[in-house]
Amino acid sequence: MFQTFKVTARPEQGPPRLAALRQAMADAALDAYLVPRADRHQGEYVAPCDERLSWLTGFTGSAGFCAVLCEEAGVFIDGRYRTQVKTQVADVFTPVPWPDIRLGDWLAARLKPGMVIGFDPWLYTAGQIQDLEASLDQTGVTLKPLDNLVDRIWADRPPAPQAPVRAHPMSFAGETHASKRARLAQELKSAGQDAAVLTLPDSIMWLLNIRGSDIPRNPIAQCFAILHAAEGGRVDLFIDLPKLEPLGDHLGEAVTARPMTDFEAALDALDGTVRVERSSVPQAVYTRLGARAVFGEDPCALPKACKNPVEIAGTQEAHLRDAAAMVELLAWLDAQAPGTLTETQVVSQLETCRRGDNALRDISFETIAGTGPNGAIMHYRVTEETDSKLEDGQLLVLDSGGQYLDGTTDITRTVAIGDVGTPEREAFTRVLQGMIAMSRLRWPAGLAGRDIEAIGRMPLWLAGQDFNHGLGHGVGAFLSVHEGPQRLSRASHVALQTGMILSNEPGYYREGAFGIRIENLLVAQTAPALPQSDPERGMLDWLTLTYVPIDRRLIVIEALTPAERQWMDDYHAQVLDKVAHRVGKQAQAWLTAATAPL
Amino acid sequence: MFQTFKVTARPEQGPPRLAALRQAMADAALDAYLVPRADRHQGEYVAPCDERLSWLTGFTGSAGFCAVLCEEAGVFIDGRYRTQVKTQVADVFTPVPWPDIRLGDWLAARLKPGMVIGFDPWLYTAGQIQDLEASLDQTGVTLKPLDNLVDRIWADRPPAPQAPVRAHPMSFAGETHASKRARLAQELKSAGQDAAVLTLPDSIMWLLNIRGSDIPRNPIAQCFAILHAAEGGRVDLFIDLPKLEPLGDHLGEAVTARPMTDFEAALDALDGTVRVERSSVPQAVYTRLGARAVFGEDPCALPKACKNPVEIAGTQEAHLRDAAAMVELLAWLDAQAPGTLTETQVVSQLETCRRGDNALRDISFETIAGTGPNGAIMHYRVTEETDSKLEDGQLLVLDSGGQYLDGTTDITRTVAIGDVGTPEREAFTRVLQGMIAMSRLRWPAGLAGRDIEAIGRMPLWLAGQDFNHGLGHGVGAFLSVHEGPQRLSRASHVALQTGMILSNEPGYYREGAFGIRIENLLVAQTAPALPQSDPERGMLDWLTLTYVPIDRRLIVIEALTPAERQWMDDYHAQVLDKVAHRVGKQAQAWLTAATAPL
Repeated sequence: MFQTFKVTARPEQGPPRLAALRQAMADAALDAYLVPRADRHQGEYVAPCDERLSWLTGFTGSAGFCAVLCEEAGVFIDGRYRTQVKTQVADVFTPVPWPDIRLGDWLAARLKPGMVIGFDPWLYTAGQIQDLEASLDQTGVTLKPLDNLVDRIWADRPPAPQAPVRAHPMSFAGETHASKRARLAQELKSAGQDAAVLTLPDSIMWLLNIRGSDIPRNPIAQCFAILHAAEGGRVDLFIDLPKLEPLGDHLGEAVTARPMTDFEAALDALDGTVRVERSSVPQAVYTRLGARAVFGEDPCALPKACKNPVEIAGTQEAHLRDAAAMVELLAWLDAQAPGTLTETQVVSQLETCRRGDNALRDISFETIAGTGPNGAIMHYRVTEETDSKLEDGQLLVLDSGGQYLDGTTDITRTVAIGDVGTPEREAFTRVLQGMIAMSRLRWPAGLAGRDIEAIGRMPLWLAGQDFNHGLGHGVGAFLSVHEGPQRLSRASHVALQTGMILSNEPGYYREGAFGIRIENLLVAQTAPALPQSDPERGMLDWLTLTYVPIDRRLIVIEALTPAERQWMDDYHAQVLDKVAHRVGKQAQAWLTAATAPL
Repeated sequence: MFQTFKVTARPEQGPPRLAALRQAMADAALDAYLVPRADRHQGEYVAPCDERLSWLTGFTGSAGFCAVLCEEAGVFIDGRYRTQVKTQVADVFTPVPWPDIRLGDWLAARLKPGMVIGFDPWLYTAGQIQDLEASLDQTGVTLKPLDNLVDRIWADRPPAPQAPVRAHPMSFAGETHASKRARLAQELKSAGQDAAVLTLPDSIMWLLNIRGSDIPRNPIAQCFAILHAAEGGRVDLFIDLPKLEPLGDHLGEAVTARPMTDFEAALDALDGTVRVERSSVPQAVYTRLGARAVFGEDPCALPKACKNPVEIAGTQEAHLRDAAAMVELLAWLDAQAPGTLTETQVVSQLETCRRGDNALRDISFETIAGTGPNGAIMHYRVTEETDSKLEDGQLLVLDSGGQYLDGTTDITRTVAIGDVGTPEREAFTRVLQGMIAMSRLRWPAGLAGRDIEAIGRMPLWLAGQDFNHGLGHGVGAFLSVHEGPQRLSRASHVALQTGMILSNEPGYYREGAFGIRIENLLVAQTAPALPQSDPERGMLDWLTLTYVPIDRRLIVIEALTPAERQWMDDYHAQVLDKVAHRVGKQAQAWLTAATAPL
């Protein structure tokens, strides 16, 4: 099993560790010290050796940080984790609602002029430090970069991951790394830049057509790279060299693998103008580059987001394979009586189904399986302590995905357990209508996620309802399940482009009662002309990737428009057509019923 | 008649005037001179004495400017005016597509280091000059403010308008100017500012509950004002004093009327921090204030946009009065055989209908009446030269409005002339569906126009169609028919608030063939709770102001959803109920048929 349900938080470990850290702060003459959850690569998941925040505080959420003062230690957490943090940290830590309370303001209210805040400049980005310095302006409080104080006191800190790096073949990547490097080198030249420092591992994996397994859920290797505008995009790759053994001559002569210990000297040796991304470059890299650094987008981000036909074809195949696993799971689930299963059993069975054909490399994130009130907790992760029975009348929210060599999946279905009440079915139908509206959409080229996101919310709005998360996020191709810059969100101003994969996942959550989410992945594509199309107006529409039944029992059929009902029946007919031959006899019978016309 | 159809452009006047301006430039040692369309108040309409751009070039559009060099004179016009400009200016002028080509770039490509560009600092805003200076940075070209060179050579320039200013009574304004001044003074204090300079006449009209008639279509008086944070919002009003004679003691002791000639000395005398709006404050005011000036929003803009209950009630009444005029017009129009009327006859008849009850103070803009291909020209203004017959099978786009003491109206209807073809009816139905979707919308408080605008476009998008203008604009209460900051547009990030009046006007335009637009005005209001509403989620919805039939003959009924059809029937039932008793017998009979259920 990739997923476990152990409760790892042990609040009682916090106080002695905090005391040790304060001693280290005193030794370093610091009045405050910042412990972020991030590693040097700002990823969503981190390796065990980088779990400094949870080691210190007990808090295991995927975002947050701790600001340790001599008398107080604030654990800053966002809205998702307000409840969780209370059970995970000892009372020597004070939960601080963030970003409602900004770090700079919190520090300024507690520190005196002349006081010094220490931080590890590898774990904080240039943007974070600039913003923090701006908010400490006029306070007389200063920031001091230094080596990591947690690492000094963490006696049994695990070693850095050393997983092998493998080539991602052309049959999945669709473009050689030489071609990618040449494209990006050209873009750097056009921008008048001589090099870019790449610090996001998924950018480097994409650029060099390689994959690793240093951290869970995300097939990347920890590394840095320098992309040179010269020589068709020569690359220096900084990595623990033994990881590269399985690669053979994949990297070729234009990519030089160098030990991680060379990285800083290589930065010093760079000439000219060097692009770094403000929101991800470590402050250590930025200060090392000094006046040579200019801020810009990670040059890999947009090309990586726009999948090529080979990547799309691979992702389609991965989704059908994954759909078969989901159908097996749903058929099995429907055969169990209400009140007999628990959430962890569903998660385990789902992973078993996904492992069925040996193609699964990892799950793409910890499966969310929340029944009844647990379904209303948007980022619920079931543990042994919270594991709940699936009771008659409940809705089960099941949000999961797989990492396959040919693609990354992410799917949510909401399933009826026994007989479900009317408010749940009505809300489910509205969520479905939003999901259908976005799936059916065609929109003018040049629009961003924020320009069309309302389409997926309108049916809920009309009933006075809404949900407090974005409609969708970008997804990688055997890379991160949360990938930028594309998003279906009011916060996203990046134009949607052909080949971008996004989730379409409206939901509805009634605290203490039930949750609903329906999620398909979609690829943006050039929309075919229609009889009445404006001749010169370029438009995009969606190619659906996910083909898994949507629970017919939860649909209030008479609330659907004819077009919505037609979409639903067409979708289910395609599900049957594409997936039936991939599942066993029993699941086939279930699938036939589950995809019958409304 | 307010509206005339005379062709005022006389291209042959341009060359001698341009030559005279170039002589004035030489006398002033200038290498270039800028002639904007704007007056000192940056309004959409200007008085005859401020029509410098059309006097010089012949171009009569509502936006644009001329950059005169010694050898070349560029007339910068946006996409609406690319065709019109060609017929209006002599070939000594070069039309320049703007903003595709930016003024700074155009100038930089033509001028040499050391050269000097002259401009009138009263007609250019601080923001425009800052942006222009930034784009001329490093070119060695400089900007020089000086008195207006066009005024030097314009021998028979009309005098400045001297129309009387009248009090806008509490029965229409709903809040005393003392209350408004106190509110705004408090806001200035909260922002740490001592005063605000107001240069937009509609802001001053709103603040002091006065109206003027210095310019067409917009009931304002040309004036400036200084709002002081002290003394409950004391105001200095700078205006040609004879205009104020009808006011009596309306202004009271806290408002000091001073001659316009005092304005600069009063600016010099200001102490402390003074708020000005970057996008509207004349550069002359900004430089005069020097270090005392800080940029901020015009403090009147947002309060003015959020109408109070008295203003909303007045506007509702104005809309019903205006609806009666529209119904009389539409009934009359339907009684004429195709091929017998021309566009100007429709415009004249409509103005006659609006004048019916003596309440009309002005039309709120030049009526757009475009039949057939003319309907596809978004800002079409019919003239004697373009006047076209309404032929069988055409669509007539009729966009018009009235200025009444109790409110400002703006309505568009698209009318079938005889038998209309299927593509037109299908497109009309899609436009209608978008208009209905926005009218029916309910949305979470805090969203801006850009967050919901897609709702009004989606039905067109699904057919591969769209339109190239915003979905809607703000509208004043017996003030400007185009009012900010509220807009239903991708460009608008201002949160929609209760009391804001907006137009909802999707359209469709097929060049050379036909145009469609349907426009109602709406007021944002707190949405009433629904049975399933999220308990703590504040939501807004729309109160409709416009009650005029929508042409049933153009609706493809079977394309409507049940909810759309229900909305249409409900709307028409309300039209009949609210308007029938306000029109004559013949129109009543027509209205009954026009509002029958689909």
